Amino acid sequence: MPGQEEHILRANFAFYTAFRNADLAAMEAVWARRWPVTCLHPGWQALIGRDEVFKSWRAIFGGGNSPPVEVSDATLQQIDNAAIVLCTERIYKTELAATNLFALEDGDWKMVHHQAGLVTIEEARSVVTLPVGLN
Amino acid sequence: MPGQEEHILRANFAFYTAFRNADLAAMEAVWARRWPVTCLHPGWQALIGRDEVFKSWRAIFGGGNSPPVEVSDATLQQIDNAAIVLCTERIYKTELAATNLFALEDGDWKMVHHQAGLVTIEEARSVVTLPVGLN
Repeated sequence: MPGQEEHILRANFAFYTAFRNADLAAMEAVWARRWPVTCLHPGWQALIGRDEVFKSWRAIFGGGNSPPVEVSDATLQQIDNAAIVLCTERIYKTELAATNLFALEDGDWKMVHHQAGLVTIEEARSVVTLPVGLN
Repeated sequence: MPGQEEHILRANFAFYTAFRNADLAAMEAVWARRWPVTCLHPGWQALIGRDEVFKSWRAIFGGGNSPPVEVSDATLQQIDNAAIVLCTERIYKTELAATNLFALEDGDWKMVHHQAGLVTIEEARSVVTLPVGLN
């Protein structure tokens, strides 16, 4: 399915907008409902399925705030009905490398997997302890 | 394309066998040649394209050895001709969460993306400095 780059990058943008705004409803709209979903927050075990993934977002957004994530350097690979966006996240002074995987669902690109991993680890603990109260 | 689970997990196994054996030829056979490929080693910027990705593997395998990676907890999601395998890597006492993305290429499942991120950061520096001499 060619010509989808703009739609995929918009889905990636919507993910980070929901993240920055601590907007749980917008975050729920970003993620797939029919494809299985998974998430690897930095420093955490794999979260498998919508229940676990959204338990984590509720914890991250708990106080009505979320970390001020900035995003750059998006690189897109499309494999038929799946697409992977790599980008760089910055949260305070910590840089993370992110893998965001999307899949076509009813004509829309929906997130099916997110992993963010530390590039710089100087301030690692402030980031890896991000989803406080999750367990 | 249903019924592909065994083939996808075999491709994932082949990746870690090549990794453990520091076998560059086997590693080259694991990765896609026609799909674009990317790799996010822990603590590193994104590597984009076969040249950058294999420069990293040559550095990691430089001395004829590679870290004794152990793998467990593989979870598979398939999206048509793409498949994502999440698994846990252990290198010495450090635990990493890995995202391995595969795509069908001429009937075989080939790796198109690998990201490993730290779960435990106690011994992070010994792992994130792994590809010494890469830059």
